[in-house]
Amino acid sequence: MQSKLLNEAHGQRTFAVIFETGDEVITGLTDFAKEHRLAGSQFTAIGAFSDVVLAYFDWSSREYQKHPLREQMEVLALAGDISLADDGTPKVHAHVVLGARDCTTRGGHLIEAHVRPTLEVIVTDSPQHLRRRHDPESGLALIRM
Amino acid sequence: MQSKLLNEAHGQRTFAVIFETGDEVITGLTDFAKEHRLAGSQFTAIGAFSDVVLAYFDWSSREYQKHPLREQMEVLALAGDISLADDGTPKVHAHVVLGARDCTTRGGHLIEAHVRPTLEVIVTDSPQHLRRRHDPESGLALIRM
Amino acid sequence: MQSKLLNEAHGQRTFAVIFETGDEVITGLTDFAKEHRLAGSQFTAIGAFSDVVLAYFDWSSREYQKHPLREQMEVLALAGDISLADDGTPKVHAHVVLGARDCTTRGGHLIEAHVRPTLEVIVTDSPQHLRRRHDPESGLALIRM
Repeated sequence: MQSKLLNEAHGQRTFAVIFETGDEVITGLTDFAKEHRLAGSQFTAIGAFSDVVLAYFDWSSREYQKHPLREQMEVLALAGDISLADDGTPKVHAHVVLGARDCTTRGGHLIEAHVRPTLEVIVTDSPQHLRRRHDPESGLALIRM
Repeated sequence: MQSKLLNEAHGQRTFAVIFETGDEVITGLTDFAKEHRLAGSQFTAIGAFSDVVLAYFDWSSREYQKHPLREQMEVLALAGDISLADDGTPKVHAHVVLGARDCTTRGGHLIEAHVRPTLEVIVTDSPQHLRRRHDPESGLALIRM
Repeated sequence: MQSKLLNEAHGQRTFAVIFETGDEVITGLTDFAKEHRLAGSQFTAIGAFSDVVLAYFDWSSREYQKHPLREQMEVLALAGDISLADDGTPKVHAHVVLGARDCTTRGGHLIEAHVRPTLEVIVTDSPQHLRRRHDPESGLALIRM
């Protein structure tokens, strides 16, 4: 993983974060967030994965159902945000749309993914923080102002 | 719906707009645009919907064909812009990609959607306006400089 | 194709680039990048295409497999970046998710696409450059810091 600060002004920072073959995305973004103290960020990315674990949040059970895919897929749209969890650590929330060999698509909440050969992420961090709090109805940690 | 101004500098503003269970997205974004006088904005979002009405613009009839979906879907990528209509009111234009239980995807022009449990939208508003004008060929109001 | 500078501050510029019926997207964005000397940009877009050539990068052959689609499709999410190639010319890298008449989706690496009736692109250019270098393992030109 390589990164470059593209712009910084008035407390807003924009980074390019470039993942390489074998890098895991959620771990990599979380480590990047800790290193650069990101606490109110959004990101978008394109690239490709060699394997990925997607998830769907089942409303009746209030649990994520995992869907592993073990094939090379284009990352058509990866989008998400970085906020602070209750314990003050950065939480990466990402959803993704993937393209298969025949150009059909799959997608879901992103649990884990390995890059091959590249993932080009642009992260914009704001000077204000976003914070998550436990939501009793869903059982999830949701952003609350 | 809750919101927070994340950054403001040189007339550019970035907001986080967090929708909650039951909130309707297009109405909510339009009301937010009126309240904050947004007239040249872009946004991206992730989250989930309990139900949604998608649309496809049929070129031969020049009409939107509506596709209601009444199931819990992940919002994988919601993107769009806010401009001014002929009458000076803000117009929200949004397209969305959704993920189903089996991680297959659906998508279209977004007519209406109810959030469950969250939709995390980042809106960036510029000091310059975008304006729509009636386009005789398509019958649509398109952005024109 | 029409464009408007929405914001400029501290070397960061944000443009709206609006394509019209018949415009080709990759050529149009590349020409726009040359004209405005874009060398470290990201963009997102929504709209519709009359026809498009998608591609999937086949890892075993290290070649793009092309998939032409000759039907009107909604552009649900188009995302990408602009960097400098080895020879100093701007390189547009874009992935896209498309919606069909029945709201099923297709997507891939974007080779070529014709707009109908509009494509609304927001481009944010940073004062820092992104550069591509030949990657021997993949055979592709990847962004390297």
